[in-house]
Amino acid sequence: MITAAFSTGVTCPLPSALEAMGERWSFLILRGAFNGLAHFEQFQSTLGIARNILSNRLGRLVECGIMARTPDTCDRRKVAYRLTEKGLALLPVLIALRQWGELYGDGEPCNPVLVDARDRRPVRTVAVQAQDGRALCAEELVWIDRAEVV
Amino acid sequence: MITAAFSTGVTCPLPSALEAMGERWSFLILRGAFNGLAHFEQFQSTLGIARNILSNRLGRLVECGIMARTPDTCDRRKVAYRLTEKGLALLPVLIALRQWGELYGDGEPCNPVLVDARDRRPVRTVAVQAQDGRALCAEELVWIDRAEVV
Repeated sequence: MITAAFSTGVTCPLPSALEAMGERWSFLILRGAFNGLAHFEQFQSTLGIARNILSNRLGRLVECGIMARTPDTCDRRKVAYRLTEKGLALLPVLIALRQWGELYGDGEPCNPVLVDARDRRPVRTVAVQAQDGRALCAEELVWIDRAEVV
Repeated sequence: MITAAFSTGVTCPLPSALEAMGERWSFLILRGAFNGLAHFEQFQSTLGIARNILSNRLGRLVECGIMARTPDTCDRRKVAYRLTEKGLALLPVLIALRQWGELYGDGEPCNPVLVDARDRRPVRTVAVQAQDGRALCAEELVWIDRAEVV
């Protein structure tokens, strides 16, 4: 049994992280952005989302700094929604969640497969690792006070 | 720009993974379970969640195989909710999300810190890695057909 794996104190950042990307449509918009969608109309037609909801969720993602409204590079009258550095940093969360869904899904091997562009070999399964690279499971983790960290 | 980072086809497992754990309360219940909470009353008092919502969300988590209802080992008249293997496999998702929230949070260093029980050193930042262990960013990833995988 893991000992207090997630802090329940006020400094635990999970709830706010969840607010930002846990909502179904926000999450699908994020996924679309990682796929290269950038314009309102692209999100709208690809996701089949109602315009008012899309507008609201894009607004929220911009508000929390995950996406930014920028003029389109080709046509400056148009607005493009791009992932910020903060948004791009969500990649491991999305990949980990996808791999989990794949492993415990309907048993069909997923297609396409995510690979390293350099050698075209599939990415590793996302894992929690020790400093020496060992994969750690819940039983091998503990929370300690910051002052006691080696 | 990443090329089709997430499949939008019918075999993409993201939407169902999201259904299972993306909802705010479900997520907080999961976090509690990783922290060792097991009984209805423990979840209720720790999370301050309404009983009907807790009951509904626990039921859903059991339904999708993330948690299981088992007789308590100490008092068999009581029911314990435990993470299944499928539930425990969500650990990298939760840790990645926490680290992201920490990095882009309010700037306060989080306390406590998650460490490897063996050497008490903090875990690595969860990353998407190539087979040789290199951390990959979105630009270094492509989706390819399963038949073309090296």
